[in-house]
Amino acid sequence: MRFDVFSLFPEVFSEYLNASILKRAQELKALEVHLHNIRDWAIDSHHTTDDTPYGGGGGMVMKPEPIFAALESVLGAPPSCPVILLTPQGRLLTQKIAFELAEHPHLALLCGRYESVDERICQHLATDAISIGDYVLSGGELPALVIIEAVTRLLPGVLGDPTAPQNDSHATGLLEYPHYTRPPEFRGWRIPDVLLSGNHAEIARWRRHESLRRTLQNRPDLLKNALLSQDDLAFLETLGYQPGEPITPSTQT
Amino acid sequence: MRFDVFSLFPEVFSEYLNASILKRAQELKALEVHLHNIRDWAIDSHHTTDDTPYGGGGGMVMKPEPIFAALESVLGAPPSCPVILLTPQGRLLTQKIAFELAEHPHLALLCGRYESVDERICQHLATDAISIGDYVLSGGELPALVIIEAVTRLLPGVLGDPTAPQNDSHATGLLEYPHYTRPPEFRGWRIPDVLLSGNHAEIARWRRHESLRRTLQNRPDLLKNALLSQDDLAFLETLGYQPGEPITPSTQT
Repeated sequence: MRFDVFSLFPEVFSEYLNASILKRAQELKALEVHLHNIRDWAIDSHHTTDDTPYGGGGGMVMKPEPIFAALESVLGAPPSCPVILLTPQGRLLTQKIAFELAEHPHLALLCGRYESVDERICQHLATDAISIGDYVLSGGELPALVIIEAVTRLLPGVLGDPTAPQNDSHATGLLEYPHYTRPPEFRGWRIPDVLLSGNHAEIARWRRHESLRRTLQNRPDLLKNALLSQDDLAFLETLGYQPGEPITPSTQT
Repeated sequence: MRFDVFSLFPEVFSEYLNASILKRAQELKALEVHLHNIRDWAIDSHHTTDDTPYGGGGGMVMKPEPIFAALESVLGAPPSCPVILLTPQGRLLTQKIAFELAEHPHLALLCGRYESVDERICQHLATDAISIGDYVLSGGELPALVIIEAVTRLLPGVLGDPTAPQNDSHATGLLEYPHYTRPPEFRGWRIPDVLLSGNHAEIARWRRHESLRRTLQNRPDLLKNALLSQDDLAFLETLGYQPGEPITPSTQT
């Protein structure tokens, strides 16, 4: 999979790309990342990439010319792959979208910076717009790294355990159950006995229940899209869950 | 504001912390970031920080001892500031939570890695658990940078325009209106005439309408928590919005 990343700060990517799983994915030739500095396509003497907004107001807006020139020079006109603008105005990234993106052999990531980018870039150059969450950052660089990492984990051969992506939180539609490792007792806090029982059916049942319990407690909004069995629903009802009622995520209280 | 960050990969933070707004915030003494390698507190001969999960299953779990030792050594026992575990099981980061976090003079960010961290860390050491979105990453390092950046932008004096954080997407509860800068015509695509009119009331009205239109189109789920005037509601109704109806975010279609 190839990513072409367009940014005013391409130098902030290398450390992260050269560590841990992204490093391994590149060594395995599963991942290729090409970084491009938008400023290299700003042809006036000051290499201007932004300007004040029409209609007034604070902040600066990224100009259309250098961005169109950068993408078309690297990717052709029109660009030969999907162009994803990272912006708080985009659709919210989910694990489902990460799986979708992982199907593409080649993606361009365009990192907005400052107040915003000129709307003509959104309308006539970007083919998709993605936000990583409902909070404000100063640019699209961290969102681009988030997309690269979320997608790279899903590429064949990248993770040691090929079933891992299917079991993670959000891949199943529920939060993950609690994990424990050695020691079995730490400062008087013992791990749950069931995990030492050797009874795999009991362990699986305990994990499913804890996963449901935690989702109901921390992210009840996820339950309406989760795949739930009759057993799951019966267990949730013992915890006070009523499927018909509107659900308020705990994040909004 | 001081952040203490605990990670197995502290080396991936420096480039990002030394660029753009985070660099400036540190120069202004508004921000201090201290990075700690959890492995320095793993005292066995192999500096082990993870182990297999009790009850079976793939992946590794971060052990409790090095993490308790690291945080207590740097922050005291119990830690003298809130300890935020970055985990997909946490509450979802929002701009409102960023404003809350910005009120603290000191925060610790604990970056989970691998499959998960031992549950006793969540129960007895972390005081908060935050997720940056419903997708799966390999560790808490990018989420920690997201929190540092989202919070730092809100600290007094960090942004050139002190009103900017209040106008951003998500700060108002709506997505931002479209931005345009020079040239007024680019490849035949002209900016909207109203922005050249000089009529500030008309411009403000156009921007509010575009902000409402875009929110309805891309993130209708946000409208139920937005502050809307009677005028706003009347305009939304001309676009087909019906306040009483359940809203399906476009991200879930």
